[in-house]
Amino acid sequence: MIYLTRRERFSAAHRMFRQDWSDEENRKVFGKCSNPNWHGHNYDLYVTVKGELSDKPGFVINIDTLKQIIQERVIHKVDHKNINLEVDFMKGRIATTENLAVAIWDQLRPFIEKEGALLHCIRIEETENNSIEYYG
Amino acid sequence: MIYLTRRERFSAAHRMFRQDWSDEENRKVFGKCSNPNWHGHNYDLYVTVKGELSDKPGFVINIDTLKQIIQERVIHKVDHKNINLEVDFMKGRIATTENLAVAIWDQLRPFIEKEGALLHCIRIEETENNSIEYYG
Amino acid sequence: MIYLTRRERFSAAHRMFRQDWSDEENRKVFGKCSNPNWHGHNYDLYVTVKGELSDKPGFVINIDTLKQIIQERVIHKVDHKNINLEVDFMKGRIATTENLAVAIWDQLRPFIEKEGALLHCIRIEETENNSIEYYG
Amino acid sequence: MIYLTRRERFSAAHRMFRQDWSDEENRKVFGKCSNPNWHGHNYDLYVTVKGELSDKPGFVINIDTLKQIIQERVIHKVDHKNINLEVDFMKGRIATTENLAVAIWDQLRPFIEKEGALLHCIRIEETENNSIEYYG
Amino acid sequence: MIYLTRRERFSAAHRMFRQDWSDEENRKVFGKCSNPNWHGHNYDLYVTVKGELSDKPGFVINIDTLKQIIQERVIHKVDHKNINLEVDFMKGRIATTENLAVAIWDQLRPFIEKEGALLHCIRIEETENNSIEYYG
Amino acid sequence: MIYLTRRERFSAAHRMFRQDWSDEENRKVFGKCSNPNWHGHNYDLYVTVKGELSDKPGFVINIDTLKQIIQERVIHKVDHKNINLEVDFMKGRIATTENLAVAIWDQLRPFIEKEGALLHCIRIEETENNSIEYYG
Repeated sequence: MIYLTRRERFSAAHRMFRQDWSDEENRKVFGKCSNPNWHGHNYDLYVTVKGELSDKPGFVINIDTLKQIIQERVIHKVDHKNINLEVDFMKGRIATTENLAVAIWDQLRPFIEKEGALLHCIRIEETENNSIEYYG
Repeated sequence: MIYLTRRERFSAAHRMFRQDWSDEENRKVFGKCSNPNWHGHNYDLYVTVKGELSDKPGFVINIDTLKQIIQERVIHKVDHKNINLEVDFMKGRIATTENLAVAIWDQLRPFIEKEGALLHCIRIEETENNSIEYYG
Repeated sequence: MIYLTRRERFSAAHRMFRQDWSDEENRKVFGKCSNPNWHGHNYDLYVTVKGELSDKPGFVINIDTLKQIIQERVIHKVDHKNINLEVDFMKGRIATTENLAVAIWDQLRPFIEKEGALLHCIRIEETENNSIEYYG
Repeated sequence: MIYLTRRERFSAAHRMFRQDWSDEENRKVFGKCSNPNWHGHNYDLYVTVKGELSDKPGFVINIDTLKQIIQERVIHKVDHKNINLEVDFMKGRIATTENLAVAIWDQLRPFIEKEGALLHCIRIEETENNSIEYYG
Repeated sequence: MIYLTRRERFSAAHRMFRQDWSDEENRKVFGKCSNPNWHGHNYDLYVTVKGELSDKPGFVINIDTLKQIIQERVIHKVDHKNINLEVDFMKGRIATTENLAVAIWDQLRPFIEKEGALLHCIRIEETENNSIEYYG
Repeated sequence: MIYLTRRERFSAAHRMFRQDWSDEENRKVFGKCSNPNWHGHNYDLYVTVKGELSDKPGFVINIDTLKQIIQERVIHKVDHKNINLEVDFMKGRIATTENLAVAIWDQLRPFIEKEGALLHCIRIEETENNSIEYYG
């Protein structure tokens, strides 16, 4: 079993808040991340897939194919967007990085399995100090 | 003459657009950076000051003082904010990184000169690929 | 189960040596890291916690709370300190990064569990080439 | 159990291709990475070993010893070399990063075990976007 | 006057040698960088342009246009190529990073001036330890 | 004129203080950096030299020679040392990064000029947030 990780990047606006809470409650739980006028980040997305070394070409997955899947299924939908307002797969979820990682897992998994590999981990670095990992 | 650079970081939302242009014109000039629902970045701000080595303590400026000036005059005003809507020193300016660098220069210069040093350069890294420098 | 990692940084002096060994023996085993006049590093501390996504706010742990715990229990005790002489939780331990990781685990674990999350990993990067991980 | 990671770096040329395929087939599967005139990378090699904290000096493995093993068994053989033509332990293998990771595992494992530690992971970063991990 | 820097990356093979020198002489002057079987690097190319802040859109140059110029005039010609054998603008020059910086300056300058900006600096990072700057 | 920058790294202990001041005065001016039990950093040293492109081999200075000069004249004297107590060229100077940059300039300049190049800049990064530049 061998693991391959591809990084892709996107920049987006978001706000952490719950619609059924008042602005005050949101501010109390989420702090400055709940600013109603939004803020944003450069997100680094690391997608790790795993597989047996196929005996022929000696790689887990064609990295150009993996790049295209991530671009088409995730990056085009989130880059230079508002995660709360414009990202279909985040509808109904609070725009935390944790929820984003789970949602991206669901977006990517079937397309990676079609290529004969397994999705192993979604890691998102929101800032150089904060990151999230999800293993399904 | 010796140069000291301090980095501080902030995360903010912005949108590049001119109010006297249509959405279509803005989209044509600014591309995806003009998204009406905003997007955002982690900004790295590098402030370079210069001065003679003061004969006594052997430094250009007290770095804690410099840090406080940058925090108070810039970071508290832009971190987790919307640059277009909430930052007083960007009022009336298009929210490009170029304009942001010039505005931050104006914010910091008098306070750094009060400390007996000279402001030399404002550098802003918007992404790992794009950065701006301004020397006054 | 989802994993959140917070990075905090500190700068400290240390020396690798055993009190029951001669300077010569220490030098033989620890090399230049045993210099009696000390040396130092910028340490990057990565604290990874894990938990179920709580159904309400959608995060593993409040990251501000986690930051405060790490700051109060570790950073304030080691930053700009001598690890051998001044850090209470390293008393009686050789000041290797391995021992430091184990000691920091013990410092942080109860406070993280009080917040309803589990401590998963302590990682310390001593230089860009050397790092240590401890999983309890 | 505690984990120690050492990074070493090398720069090398390579080409991805299978000798029993035509240039056209190689180009189709491997894309620009199959360029017959070679291309190259700066590779970051991360070697992770694990062990119990030996009760005496408080470290997993002497890091100078680990560095020497990696330098002698791997870096001297691949740095400023052509991976396809000049690296003995890659003979007969397609020069993918996946195969390189497996081959480096085989090179290092016996020498690390002689030091009383276990080899845990070989990670190679080929570019800032692509990396491979192998756990044996 | 304001400065904008765009980073683009490429991976290439090269060899430092002079055709009118013997292999031995080349080895003596260029060391391992003269390996006849090539080696390679991930190159980071930083292109800095400068200009007055145009009063309308508030930027020095349209960054998408700059990106396209660099991609078309440089990256497509050097990425996954052999700098000695395949790069037209390096014909007849020794494949040092110094010469590469000068050649890239010549490639880019007219196209940047057509956009109303001035080329200020070409910086190439060959490894994390070695870089070259050229100001024309 | 072309510029070449070489990075070398060292780890050292230091303390900022003036011998003719009391501990209290030192603490007031230098803050936690004046801790009598020392602290330390990983320092990144960037040495920039400049020169005309010599017509023969196409480089400013032989980078192996430059590396050896920096290693011999600076790194061997400061790495894993106490800057206040053990570094001959810092005797009588307060161990600020500013003074260190000036002292390293004086150490390196004659040896670089012997190689037919000019020393242009000494840059020291003390942490990822603080750096110093000196141009002679």
